[in-house]
Amino acid sequence: MNKYLITGFSGFVGYYFAEYLANSGENDLIMGLDIQNPNFEFNHYKNLKIHFEKTDLLSRDQVECIVNDFQPDYILHLASYSSVGLSWKDPVESFRNNTNIFLNLMDVVRKLRIPSRILSIGSSEEYGNARDEDLPLRENHKLNPVSPYAVARMAQELLSKVYINGFGMDLVLTRSFNHVGPMQRSIFVISSLAKQLVAIKKSGWTRGDIVTGDISIVRDFTDVRDVVRAYDLLLKKGETGQVYNVCSGRGFSVKDIIEIMVKQLDIEVNIKIDSRLIRPADNKKIIGSNEKIKKELGWQNRIPLEKSISDIIVYWEKSLNAESNFMPIQGESSTL
Amino acid sequence: MNKYLITGFSGFVGYYFAEYLANSGENDLIMGLDIQNPNFEFNHYKNLKIHFEKTDLLSRDQVECIVNDFQPDYILHLASYSSVGLSWKDPVESFRNNTNIFLNLMDVVRKLRIPSRILSIGSSEEYGNARDEDLPLRENHKLNPVSPYAVARMAQELLSKVYINGFGMDLVLTRSFNHVGPMQRSIFVISSLAKQLVAIKKSGWTRGDIVTGDISIVRDFTDVRDVVRAYDLLLKKGETGQVYNVCSGRGFSVKDIIEIMVKQLDIEVNIKIDSRLIRPADNKKIIGSNEKIKKELGWQNRIPLEKSISDIIVYWEKSLNAESNFMPIQGESSTL
Repeated sequence: MNKYLITGFSGFVGYYFAEYLANSGENDLIMGLDIQNPNFEFNHYKNLKIHFEKTDLLSRDQVECIVNDFQPDYILHLASYSSVGLSWKDPVESFRNNTNIFLNLMDVVRKLRIPSRILSIGSSEEYGNARDEDLPLRENHKLNPVSPYAVARMAQELLSKVYINGFGMDLVLTRSFNHVGPMQRSIFVISSLAKQLVAIKKSGWTRGDIVTGDISIVRDFTDVRDVVRAYDLLLKKGETGQVYNVCSGRGFSVKDIIEIMVKQLDIEVNIKIDSRLIRPADNKKIIGSNEKIKKELGWQNRIPLEKSISDIIVYWEKSLNAESNFMPIQGESSTL
Repeated sequence: MNKYLITGFSGFVGYYFAEYLANSGENDLIMGLDIQNPNFEFNHYKNLKIHFEKTDLLSRDQVECIVNDFQPDYILHLASYSSVGLSWKDPVESFRNNTNIFLNLMDVVRKLRIPSRILSIGSSEEYGNARDEDLPLRENHKLNPVSPYAVARMAQELLSKVYINGFGMDLVLTRSFNHVGPMQRSIFVISSLAKQLVAIKKSGWTRGDIVTGDISIVRDFTDVRDVVRAYDLLLKKGETGQVYNVCSGRGFSVKDIIEIMVKQLDIEVNIKIDSRLIRPADNKKIIGSNEKIKKELGWQNRIPLEKSISDIIVYWEKSLNAESNFMPIQGESSTL
């Protein structure tokens, strides 16, 4: 039995991580923290006990008290104000709810001298604008953060190294690329597009309009169910101080994604570009190399994007029938 | 006439910057902000008007109100929790009082759309542990921050670039190496050593004990009077988005400094190492190249360290006679 402290538990990744542990048959214990209550059930698992505490991670006292009582074996720090777009609108809040919450948590663990192993989640956004010849991005590629969110994530990574080298703490780091799956909120691109297209299909029309940002942008999407498997593996077998890309190694443009969806739904669309969805200094193309995590830890991404998309379409088909029963989950670690 | 907003005004550099402007004969206006009141006079200058506001730079509303009322031409952001040693003791507070105060100020200027030119002060500590063959450190050297303070400064630099490239703001950046001068607090190495040695001399003994940290550590010290000249030049003529080392280009070990002082005072000393003054993961040797600021802006450092030291000795000789009249100035941007 392992004790996991999971921050940002009420988010998309938190839900799938709990599902993953529940299916692993290990009788684990989760202490879930989040500033919002989860809008999913978490007390129905047979071999997984979950306790949830509504927590402001900026409150040192609150965090110290919880960590000291729980004495976690593993800390999965998912909490994040993770939208690049929102970070341009409010850089101060973005920074506080990324870097400062992380620092606060690390400093509590340092002070209490709890020998937890910690997974610090970073972002592909840290790489910044890459040239085509740099793709796929490897972990040793120069970081060049261009958004407030990306700077906050890089600062978190730099702080991790100080806590490892200066204080002897045990952290493993990721740079996670976009992740997707059913129940992701529709502020994120794939979920948003699927929701719009399912609505068109349901309306009975065979052609309709969808609204999106720059459709030429290319990202590397990993199914959230593959991501949580990577995170547990990194917690258990990752090397202290090492950074691992968590990604699929494949790039899809927003246009590619619309084409996959349109084909699956058998409809036609007119694409309308909303310039408010196009952000300053945005990265055009991000594709990662997952060679390191594959080679060193034996992880494989198993779910291709086409399968993720069909599951997301099924989710929205059900959800748009009965909105109240299928609420998307708040607060993701994915972005775009 | 130029309007300067100076944060961290009550500190060592703030005092000397005001002295510098007062002697430049330009009839400038300063709005000084600090969380502590200055312990020096600032209303006696003929051609320089100074208004001071006690301000918490973490308070967004307070900062916004002041910046909006004052509409500065130049912002000299000196405010900093600048001790590397203290950052190891309280990384959270160090980070808030470096990165978060800077971010707060930048975001106020962005929101108010004030066309101020801003000088962001960084630190030589950002370079981290350099190899001998990398010295003197140039601006294009890889950053490798090893202390919480150094990470906070590097995060500030990364944020500056976001505000320049993402929001079109006008910032110039420094990486400032150690600075010294009369009136620096005795938590900083040169001031501390001078104070101890002057006390020995005054006691009438020709030999005494001094307490210090690792005496093999080498740093590049610039006289604060040269530093403030560099800062004004950078505000007026630095290139937007560029980073400039502010340093002397010469390295002195703590041992070298003790030898200079002992010679000037004509005494002998026994050096006692206090292990509490030796910090984890400390950089052994930091020397900068000042070629860029010399070549591009014509700055020269005029005051050699031997002269700075003799002025500091004079300061402590007077100060130890009449402690209350010669209070060292609070809060520096220098460190070691």
